[in-house]
Amino acid sequence: MAPPRITTGELAALLGGELVGDPAAVVDRFASSVAEAGPGAIAFINNRKYYKALRQTKATLVLVPRDIDRSSCPKGVSMLVLEDPYLALARGMQMWFRSPRAVTGVSERAFVSPTAKLGKDVNVFPFAFVGDGAELGDRVDVHPFSYVGPLAQVGADTILYAGAVLYAKTRVGARCIVHSGAVLGSDGFGFAPDKKTGEHVKIPQVGIAVIEDDVEVGASTTIDRAAFDETRIGRGTKIDNLVQIGHNARVGRGCFLVAQSGIAGTTRVGDFVTIAAQAGLVGHIQIGNGATIAAQSGVTEDVGPGKQVVGTPAVEGKQGLRYLRVQRHLPELRSTVRRLEKRILELERRLGLANQTSTPGPERDAGE
Amino acid sequence: MAPPRITTGELAALLGGELVGDPAAVVDRFASSVAEAGPGAIAFINNRKYYKALRQTKATLVLVPRDIDRSSCPKGVSMLVLEDPYLALARGMQMWFRSPRAVTGVSERAFVSPTAKLGKDVNVFPFAFVGDGAELGDRVDVHPFSYVGPLAQVGADTILYAGAVLYAKTRVGARCIVHSGAVLGSDGFGFAPDKKTGEHVKIPQVGIAVIEDDVEVGASTTIDRAAFDETRIGRGTKIDNLVQIGHNARVGRGCFLVAQSGIAGTTRVGDFVTIAAQAGLVGHIQIGNGATIAAQSGVTEDVGPGKQVVGTPAVEGKQGLRYLRVQRHLPELRSTVRRLEKRILELERRLGLANQTSTPGPERDAGE
Amino acid sequence: MAPPRITTGELAALLGGELVGDPAAVVDRFASSVAEAGPGAIAFINNRKYYKALRQTKATLVLVPRDIDRSSCPKGVSMLVLEDPYLALARGMQMWFRSPRAVTGVSERAFVSPTAKLGKDVNVFPFAFVGDGAELGDRVDVHPFSYVGPLAQVGADTILYAGAVLYAKTRVGARCIVHSGAVLGSDGFGFAPDKKTGEHVKIPQVGIAVIEDDVEVGASTTIDRAAFDETRIGRGTKIDNLVQIGHNARVGRGCFLVAQSGIAGTTRVGDFVTIAAQAGLVGHIQIGNGATIAAQSGVTEDVGPGKQVVGTPAVEGKQGLRYLRVQRHLPELRSTVRRLEKRILELERRLGLANQTSTPGPERDAGE
Repeated sequence: MAPPRITTGELAALLGGELVGDPAAVVDRFASSVAEAGPGAIAFINNRKYYKALRQTKATLVLVPRDIDRSSCPKGVSMLVLEDPYLALARGMQMWFRSPRAVTGVSERAFVSPTAKLGKDVNVFPFAFVGDGAELGDRVDVHPFSYVGPLAQVGADTILYAGAVLYAKTRVGARCIVHSGAVLGSDGFGFAPDKKTGEHVKIPQVGIAVIEDDVEVGASTTIDRAAFDETRIGRGTKIDNLVQIGHNARVGRGCFLVAQSGIAGTTRVGDFVTIAAQAGLVGHIQIGNGATIAAQSGVTEDVGPGKQVVGTPAVEGKQGLRYLRVQRHLPELRSTVRRLEKRILELERRLGLANQTSTPGPERDAGE
Repeated sequence: MAPPRITTGELAALLGGELVGDPAAVVDRFASSVAEAGPGAIAFINNRKYYKALRQTKATLVLVPRDIDRSSCPKGVSMLVLEDPYLALARGMQMWFRSPRAVTGVSERAFVSPTAKLGKDVNVFPFAFVGDGAELGDRVDVHPFSYVGPLAQVGADTILYAGAVLYAKTRVGARCIVHSGAVLGSDGFGFAPDKKTGEHVKIPQVGIAVIEDDVEVGASTTIDRAAFDETRIGRGTKIDNLVQIGHNARVGRGCFLVAQSGIAGTTRVGDFVTIAAQAGLVGHIQIGNGATIAAQSGVTEDVGPGKQVVGTPAVEGKQGLRYLRVQRHLPELRSTVRRLEKRILELERRLGLANQTSTPGPERDAGE
Repeated sequence: MAPPRITTGELAALLGGELVGDPAAVVDRFASSVAEAGPGAIAFINNRKYYKALRQTKATLVLVPRDIDRSSCPKGVSMLVLEDPYLALARGMQMWFRSPRAVTGVSERAFVSPTAKLGKDVNVFPFAFVGDGAELGDRVDVHPFSYVGPLAQVGADTILYAGAVLYAKTRVGARCIVHSGAVLGSDGFGFAPDKKTGEHVKIPQVGIAVIEDDVEVGASTTIDRAAFDETRIGRGTKIDNLVQIGHNARVGRGCFLVAQSGIAGTTRVGDFVTIAAQAGLVGHIQIGNGATIAAQSGVTEDVGPGKQVVGTPAVEGKQGLRYLRVQRHLPELRSTVRRLEKRILELERRLGLANQTSTPGPERDAGE
């Protein structure tokens, strides 16, 4: 996916930084490493670790932070000095790699219900399904094997990749990206136990799932519909692959849910919360704005705004990291305790107190 | 999904409880909270925490347990007194929200093999696939992008949602619900290592997967076929999203497998077992009837009937919960041990024993 | 799936072992247990535990290791003596159960772009999709609802099961098996935070995902495309169900990734590495050749070649197993420490040192 050619001067105008070097130099690709970049490439430096790599780069243009040592830039290499080069890279790449969207319209090999409502310039690819009463906003892409259930709604400029599934009445906002295999609005896991028979009696899940604008949903992620009212994912939240979100959960705006994490039913997650990979949240708790849940943590109680928690059960960051570190030394700690016990016993003998030590601790009895 | 209107008297006749109030009052919806319910709504109280909320409710009818204080019910509000209001709610909702099933038959845009056998009133939607020799019972629904492989069997009244996959010969019972993206009967993960080359030589997985009656399988859950004989999920078991069940595993009746949990190959799970979210069971173990596996646990050995286990490696509930609680205090425990060591050293000095303390414990050497 | 009938003599010629018994005996099926095998069956013994079961078997042929006691074989039962019976079983089953592949060609109900290039004897089933410029090698099978995106490449003899998804430009090698619901080449989870607004700005994922030859990818497993260059899975690696592999990760040859495990972005995994179920690896680390990651481990730093790690955070095997074992006894350890503290206090009192014990340890203060 080669981006179009552009001059460093044009790029500076787009990204808004201070150009140091030749505004007429032409760049036509991105490099993943400033050290390995060659002529024609744009590289970037975002981390102090790589500041000195600037000295050897062969890139044509390097996006650099303000505190870079400008004298370390080789001759013939231009610098674009920016407050946040990584962010500028993201925005720059978005401009470059935005290919003009082809409007192919509704394929004859797609299924679109006569009662569905389609906006302008919608693409419905072969083998896509748009059910009765469904609504697709302008410029929506529905790729093959994508299922838009009856009465589901999809906002403008949203992309449903191959095999994305929206159950009936699911609502997805504008500018969302729903990756392949994502399932939005399937039944929540709600059953009432019949204590006499042990049977799990299904509670019909008659609520819906609502995904607000600018959300990205990863491949094979599952977001359940609510039992009664709604499961909701806030604007701008990004969700990775294989994430599970239970019925009636509410996730705020700008959250970041990493792969294989899970949120149980009815839990409320605030805005700008990060949930790292493979972490799990029990149901019916509240996570404050800006909180961070470490990878593989098991969160069993409320987490305050801005707090960082880690471990299972999760505890606050500093405390949590300490116990995880000490944990490795548990066997040695136990050996120490046993040695100390012997020394105490010897002391007690010297002082004629030995008989009170005749009961060994239960810990000594425990098999291992 | 509005349920039809019904009178409280008719409802009492259906659910079987004792009606206290006006049998002619009309209800037409469910409320998720007794506090927020309004006129026309049915609410329910299942938990002592909410008993006092009855006093303020504006619901038309509240399903209440037998030990409720009946005098706390506002005037104009009817109560239906039941042994288990939550269970009654489930059963009531099932009646309400059961819309008459439309029989649309086999879409011309579906693929149904001429050798497939279809029962009465089967729906096969556009872009559904039913392979050679497959069998669908009466009133089965096969939604778009659902794949019923060759010789697979589906029992009466079962629903396969969009994109559910049944590999060849997979058997699904009656009244099952298979959600989108669920994959039943894909190859088990069986390989023989070639010690000379390091190659993993595939063991053809020639067994099948069998799902008994009344099972619900969540979105993107995977249940592998057996190597030789069968993987089996017992009657009435409910499986959440993103669950993994390995080849040759046997899960009993009425189990409850929560999201992102996993069962490795050949493990036997008894009846009415609960496996909470993100828990994992190693292969070749047995879990007794009625056992409960806590969330995120890692079960490495057999679990007896009725036992509760927690942690990694999982230990019995009370013991497990205790170590998880103590774990948080590990750093302080270590500090305590270090202080005690100093005090012992001082004691030893006083008694002229100090030289035996010259070797510091290994735990002291370990970096952190 | 009955294999064709074969004589034990023909089988010995195929598998290469030493036949002890009747070369004209006919076998026509495999048995999963030597104890339960009946006449006509091939059984195998791979484990000392089952050596004595040979004495009672009714199988026609048993694959046995070299150190078996040959005199324990019942009359009328033949033995095929092999260096590695399990491996021979795998190879034998591969021969038996290899049914001749039917060439059905490209279904009229499939979608194949006029610009796609197809090798010889390719099968494209109804409702499969092959995009513009995609390439399918000889004898590739593309099952219903499989999506081969634009410019994607699939090597010879590869099978894409129902609902497998290859995003644009994804490359899959020869003799691969991609199970249903697997998603290869979806966008990596890459965003630059805009510190002012909290917005996650998407970094276009313009790299690709490359799967080398002889790889098996389990159901609903997700492998992301790279941000810039490529995510790569090495030759002969086997991946189970519901595994997540992040963008720019590199997995070597012959690895074994078990269900629900995850590898974060840019991590390098060497050759012949085993990652057990539900384990997670953070990004930007290196795992040496032949390393083993235990189930549910959380790996946060590099792992050397051949090392075994366990726990969260993962530590080397022996150390890790020790702390997991001791962990269960934490409550008793704490009780011991408390008792020791009392005994020390008593000793100090006797020696007139009691006043220095007046400050209780912080561990005592901590609630539990």
